[in-house]
Amino acid sequence: MSLTVVGSIAFDSLETPFGKKERVLGGAATHFSLSASFFTKVNIVGVVGGDFTEKEWEVFRRHHINVNDVEVIPDGKTFFWRGRYDYDMNVAHTLETQLNVFEKFQPKLSEKSRNSRLLFLANIMPTLQKQVRHQCPNAEFVAMDTMNFWISSMKDAVIETMKTVDCIVINDAEARQLAEEPNIHKAAKQLMKIADLKAVVIKRGEYGAILFTKDSFFACPAYPLESVFDPTGAGDTFAGGFMGFLASQNRIDESALRRAMIYGSIMASFNVEEFGTERVDKLEYHEINQRFRDFKKMTHFDDIPFEKMTSA
Amino acid sequence: MSLTVVGSIAFDSLETPFGKKERVLGGAATHFSLSASFFTKVNIVGVVGGDFTEKEWEVFRRHHINVNDVEVIPDGKTFFWRGRYDYDMNVAHTLETQLNVFEKFQPKLSEKSRNSRLLFLANIMPTLQKQVRHQCPNAEFVAMDTMNFWISSMKDAVIETMKTVDCIVINDAEARQLAEEPNIHKAAKQLMKIADLKAVVIKRGEYGAILFTKDSFFACPAYPLESVFDPTGAGDTFAGGFMGFLASQNRIDESALRRAMIYGSIMASFNVEEFGTERVDKLEYHEINQRFRDFKKMTHFDDIPFEKMTSA
Repeated sequence: MSLTVVGSIAFDSLETPFGKKERVLGGAATHFSLSASFFTKVNIVGVVGGDFTEKEWEVFRRHHINVNDVEVIPDGKTFFWRGRYDYDMNVAHTLETQLNVFEKFQPKLSEKSRNSRLLFLANIMPTLQKQVRHQCPNAEFVAMDTMNFWISSMKDAVIETMKTVDCIVINDAEARQLAEEPNIHKAAKQLMKIADLKAVVIKRGEYGAILFTKDSFFACPAYPLESVFDPTGAGDTFAGGFMGFLASQNRIDESALRRAMIYGSIMASFNVEEFGTERVDKLEYHEINQRFRDFKKMTHFDDIPFEKMTSA
Repeated sequence: MSLTVVGSIAFDSLETPFGKKERVLGGAATHFSLSASFFTKVNIVGVVGGDFTEKEWEVFRRHHINVNDVEVIPDGKTFFWRGRYDYDMNVAHTLETQLNVFEKFQPKLSEKSRNSRLLFLANIMPTLQKQVRHQCPNAEFVAMDTMNFWISSMKDAVIETMKTVDCIVINDAEARQLAEEPNIHKAAKQLMKIADLKAVVIKRGEYGAILFTKDSFFACPAYPLESVFDPTGAGDTFAGGFMGFLASQNRIDESALRRAMIYGSIMASFNVEEFGTERVDKLEYHEINQRFRDFKKMTHFDDIPFEKMTSA
């Protein structure tokens, strides 16, 4: 019943066709931990600057997220990202990145964070991910994310880190790039084989997500949304729902993994409805349960096999 | 238990990363009728030239497709298309198009074709589609396809034709273009409203297909294929499985429509495994039934709602 996440905590300035907002709380570990907090106890490991205010801490506190391992560098500034989305919400245009205190981030895990049953390595430098993974030798299920930047610049390190985890949660293009294979099914199987993974999760934005395990395949659609307000953090929110739900289960088996995919998709669907963390921050359980029922309905078809015509 | 399709019959010269093949049997109505023939009796309405040989007729005959309404113009040539696919199999590059006898195609429906219970208007000029639709006033369920070319050049006619049918089966980009709306869910609902449709089916290639009905939404994944050999005709093969299965059912209700989506996806998944019509031509029922069971498995998740943590 516990989950540790290591990754970025940030301020995001966002511009979408529907509006703009300055310096909202963001970062991979933020979106992840908020999402996971609906299912389990979360420890977040990260770093912020002196510009991090009571308002931001309050968001974590409200969701009972353990922030003891968030280092504060009083004379530094928090990681800052400015981005814009046009009508194709699948593409984020980065306008400005200030790594600030994140540049020299050295994750320091307390005893509590190290003893977590599950661990998620959000998108940070793969060598750092590996260090953190080794600090948690008893974690029962470890998953990681990565990004095109690391795959291009230090692919070997990404693969070495991958070999120390149970599961990767990445997007379509990253999987293809990492496996150097255009077919997504072949790519997923190759990654699974290279790193002896238990599961590969491929996020496909508005097309949903797919799960590969040793001898099974599961396809999960995206929740049908008529308006996507701000996609920032959708992938991390997905991962938070996925890992958070798994942490709530006694056994991490095929049944749990498949439901975790659904909860990941549900949480991501809420995340994109408002700016930054706003929507998930105020989310209620009955809303999650309603979308779970919706997923059941929208994927159901009657199990009646076709009877070959008899009148020839 | 009968279905009429009106559309192109063609020779295709195809080039993919996996090989090339000259003048294979193709065309929307061909792929559609072959696929539908596994589920119902099909009447095909089209036109061919004197270059159409016994070998091609034999393919239709083998599948008990009624070709009486295929007009033969002995001194004309059959519609010809030459296309190439690169590694991104979602994009067809047209190298050559010879409309030939198809240019002056005037569909002539026999009594039998006019009295069919279901009708599919494959992608031809929308004004022709509408004429055909009016020749079949008693059809219980009518669906149509269209393409970007007609939407750009005669959008009003596309919409007028749409108002005379029950269902459209089009791809993602076409739906967005036709509705002038980037969000696919909004686009589908708008099309449904403009034309008072019973169903909108959006094909999304490797991402599957989605079905909108008056008050329901269904998401169907694509069958996981590790190699796609030739995607030509996949959309028409989908439509053939969809409409063919519906024709086999006594009632065209939500349950039948959802299973029709699955059979459409199954048929399309076979079509892309070999060049042209080769794979579907030799398909057997047990293979279709196996993939139906696979679809059930790959979309299943246990219906266990999340229990909110009690240990706070």
